[in-house]
Amino acid sequence: MDKLLVLIQCKDEVGLVANITRILATHQLNIIAMREFVDEEEQRFFARISCSASNTNIDQLKLELEKALPENAFVNVVPKADKRVAVLVTKEFHCLSDILIRNYFRTLGAEVKCVIGNYENLKALSEKLEVPFHYVSHEGLPKEKFEELIIEELGQYQLDYIVLAKFMRIISPAFVAKYQHKIINIHHSFLPAFIGASPYQQAFKRGVKIIGATAHFVTDDLDEGPIITQQTIHVNHTYDAKQMAIAGREIEKSVLSKALELVFDDRVFVVGNKTVVFE
Amino acid sequence: MDKLLVLIQCKDEVGLVANITRILATHQLNIIAMREFVDEEEQRFFARISCSASNTNIDQLKLELEKALPENAFVNVVPKADKRVAVLVTKEFHCLSDILIRNYFRTLGAEVKCVIGNYENLKALSEKLEVPFHYVSHEGLPKEKFEELIIEELGQYQLDYIVLAKFMRIISPAFVAKYQHKIINIHHSFLPAFIGASPYQQAFKRGVKIIGATAHFVTDDLDEGPIITQQTIHVNHTYDAKQMAIAGREIEKSVLSKALELVFDDRVFVVGNKTVVFE
Amino acid sequence: MDKLLVLIQCKDEVGLVANITRILATHQLNIIAMREFVDEEEQRFFARISCSASNTNIDQLKLELEKALPENAFVNVVPKADKRVAVLVTKEFHCLSDILIRNYFRTLGAEVKCVIGNYENLKALSEKLEVPFHYVSHEGLPKEKFEELIIEELGQYQLDYIVLAKFMRIISPAFVAKYQHKIINIHHSFLPAFIGASPYQQAFKRGVKIIGATAHFVTDDLDEGPIITQQTIHVNHTYDAKQMAIAGREIEKSVLSKALELVFDDRVFVVGNKTVVFE
Amino acid sequence: MDKLLVLIQCKDEVGLVANITRILATHQLNIIAMREFVDEEEQRFFARISCSASNTNIDQLKLELEKALPENAFVNVVPKADKRVAVLVTKEFHCLSDILIRNYFRTLGAEVKCVIGNYENLKALSEKLEVPFHYVSHEGLPKEKFEELIIEELGQYQLDYIVLAKFMRIISPAFVAKYQHKIINIHHSFLPAFIGASPYQQAFKRGVKIIGATAHFVTDDLDEGPIITQQTIHVNHTYDAKQMAIAGREIEKSVLSKALELVFDDRVFVVGNKTVVFE
Repeated sequence: MDKLLVLIQCKDEVGLVANITRILATHQLNIIAMREFVDEEEQRFFARISCSASNTNIDQLKLELEKALPENAFVNVVPKADKRVAVLVTKEFHCLSDILIRNYFRTLGAEVKCVIGNYENLKALSEKLEVPFHYVSHEGLPKEKFEELIIEELGQYQLDYIVLAKFMRIISPAFVAKYQHKIINIHHSFLPAFIGASPYQQAFKRGVKIIGATAHFVTDDLDEGPIITQQTIHVNHTYDAKQMAIAGREIEKSVLSKALELVFDDRVFVVGNKTVVFE
Repeated sequence: MDKLLVLIQCKDEVGLVANITRILATHQLNIIAMREFVDEEEQRFFARISCSASNTNIDQLKLELEKALPENAFVNVVPKADKRVAVLVTKEFHCLSDILIRNYFRTLGAEVKCVIGNYENLKALSEKLEVPFHYVSHEGLPKEKFEELIIEELGQYQLDYIVLAKFMRIISPAFVAKYQHKIINIHHSFLPAFIGASPYQQAFKRGVKIIGATAHFVTDDLDEGPIITQQTIHVNHTYDAKQMAIAGREIEKSVLSKALELVFDDRVFVVGNKTVVFE
Repeated sequence: MDKLLVLIQCKDEVGLVANITRILATHQLNIIAMREFVDEEEQRFFARISCSASNTNIDQLKLELEKALPENAFVNVVPKADKRVAVLVTKEFHCLSDILIRNYFRTLGAEVKCVIGNYENLKALSEKLEVPFHYVSHEGLPKEKFEELIIEELGQYQLDYIVLAKFMRIISPAFVAKYQHKIINIHHSFLPAFIGASPYQQAFKRGVKIIGATAHFVTDDLDEGPIITQQTIHVNHTYDAKQMAIAGREIEKSVLSKALELVFDDRVFVVGNKTVVFE
Repeated sequence: MDKLLVLIQCKDEVGLVANITRILATHQLNIIAMREFVDEEEQRFFARISCSASNTNIDQLKLELEKALPENAFVNVVPKADKRVAVLVTKEFHCLSDILIRNYFRTLGAEVKCVIGNYENLKALSEKLEVPFHYVSHEGLPKEKFEELIIEELGQYQLDYIVLAKFMRIISPAFVAKYQHKIINIHHSFLPAFIGASPYQQAFKRGVKIIGATAHFVTDDLDEGPIITQQTIHVNHTYDAKQMAIAGREIEKSVLSKALELVFDDRVFVVGNKTVVFE
């Protein structure tokens, strides 16, 4: 028996679950775990249904589901397969190395096709861990040209997701538009506190007792995209901005890992600037 | 529109969710949130379905569901109503007061019908917060007689649950049998560490860096009943056993509150010596 | 043997600890626990020294310490005694009741001399738990007059601290000035996120996955005073603003309790808009 | 200005801190941060004093301190320097890779001199990350002979600590005796719950809602050595033993990292089967 994942997002109406599960039953799919949510304000219905299956005709199942659901329903039937991802970095190693190690031992739920860096210092690590590294410097280039070079590299791979693992350049709306809801960023603060640059310096000056990190999808508004997951840790008066940054790295690494696990396991739906996450 | 809760536990088989949701749809019930789980090892199916309803014939709905499900299915259709509970205490105030305050301001999800104490020191608090207090001393009585007196008091009220809020007497299998899966206890340790007496003294001697508390249903085996929820907090070398106990009270209070919220909101299913909790 | 607390804040210089501890030794004080911190940026020295003592001449000890330390040193020698506090409330019961229960059972580390409310609904609870309640309505009064009435009530008691336990009126700089670093507020968000009104509504709209609460000293700048402690909890897509507020109450209660414990145990030093907290 | 660390453990008596700090002052050492603790039960005094120093005569300082302290005082004056460590592994990569990555980027606070494995599957990773890997199989060997081979490899390096990063062989008292308080183990459970083999299977069967991990120094008694640090995470009914193990890996990695940071930064004192940790 294989496992199959059915993902649905549509307008809410009475009888949806009955319709969906009736169709699943006619395909002899046994539901292992079903997560369902209705956003009552937006009148949207979300479901993630994990089934055990054998010899399912996936196209046929998808078609039947679409017919039975309200117009413009999003239906996806996903056989268990690794996602294809690229990772963009600048200089910091902590998030990248965590991803590369999981990739190397095949526990990431995705395959890292390449790393792209605007500095060269993470090239050795990437290559040691058997992932191609493309060096694309931003120096002396207009943003447009810099991004064009990156997009060219990305174009070599059929990618499901792009991970910004401490990539410290702001990306343009044009870039974002090309990869709608496909770019995942780790922000080094507990959004919406300390939006923008130098969050640890800001946090230190404010004398906060907690710092955090936020993984989110990237949209045009800086640091305003749909949040996937967040975590916080306690700090105290003995931490200066630099020590907060060091402590922050651990939480950044952990939050990004968690977000990738959720996204790669198809547990995250985007709706407006929010997410529904079936943990 | 009212809210209605449908609770189901039965043998797992293909098509269950389809059957259930088809019946709900024929009753014009709109599913707001559905939580479903299959224990693959035990081949058991669990569902908690929250619906918006109007003028539902509850008995009819229950009957139809039972017919459509495997034999010996447990089906419950619960209109939103406060549970009726009694609280048993010894001397410590922290868990009881949290319950009584929530009860006083009607945010407990239950109505506390009485407090029974084997000491008198919590009588004043109970009565101030408008809950009858029955003093039943254990002194000089065989356990059997002591419990008989308690059961007599409990018998005055039609109770859904009995909460042991730091009740420091071990209760007998006979008592437990009378209230199968209806007695909730807060254990002052992170089970299964430090089973039995003086857990904080044990924890201090072992030099642990974390202590915890466990809320569980009571069964015949001391401290071995199905766990509802647990929490832990950090301690360090500056805590002696007494300070651990003080810190532990906060976590006991918090864990018991959480467990009661879950149980009173019909989110907890018992299966063997475990629980399924739809948080 | 009694316990004595020595609190020091002054300009940093070489040999401070040696000087301080030499003087303590001449008074036959045995140091049980010493916490010391140098803010290297501000060149400030902080110490909290817990000693076991017998028949110490406190005034003499204080004098000798002041002589031995840099000019303008703040020195305090505190015999273990409960603080005297007033609590200001509006309508919400969760923070107040936690304080009153601890007060009633004498585990607060302070004595609550009175509760002042701008609504009457918490009067019954306060009085049941044996604390006088003063009702001071803000309705129809200019802020100045309203605060004058409160200050009049407060004036009856020699207070060490004023606790704003969900007091929903913004207090004026004049009021703050009267009780410099003596007013403790619980803010219903994880500052500096969601400053100002309706933080849970803001949090819901932003789709955050964590909410929090902040206890801080009150200064002229709204929500900008020195932070004492903060905590966060996870929320998810199933929480609307109202459910976030309900979950938030637990964390508000817990954070305020923790902050009061720290302040009443003389573990918090204020320096600029920050705190040094010897936990 | 350099930083110097002064570590002291001795019998408690009046005037210790005064004596110590007087001597530090005569050496023109400015105290940056001082942590001090008295174990009142054991009458033991512990101090960790971080100083800024220039041209300190370390031997002379140490001598003067020893003279001024009670007999058998342990005094150590530590210039900031990386520790020298070996890591022992079996098959699991998650703890080792975290250590090796930090080592590779020089943020571990220690230098990993070698990895020793009783399987070969982590050899490639170690060597890619530029640490020698010694393969020492246990197969067909009596424990005594197996450990002899390991000790031989270890003997090549002057080691401060040996880290058991999921090394799944029980080591003998003879081995432990050779490296008293120098061997750090990560135990895959929240000790003292689930001592011994298959803790995740045990945890699953008990239906716990929290799992954890424990880093501790190794002593003769299996899983009974002084605990350095512990952490827990929430699990629920959807986790089987295998999924608990997967979730557990994250916490094991995190706990071991934290413990190593504390130990390598000389923040951990061992006293009997407990630790004093100046976090």
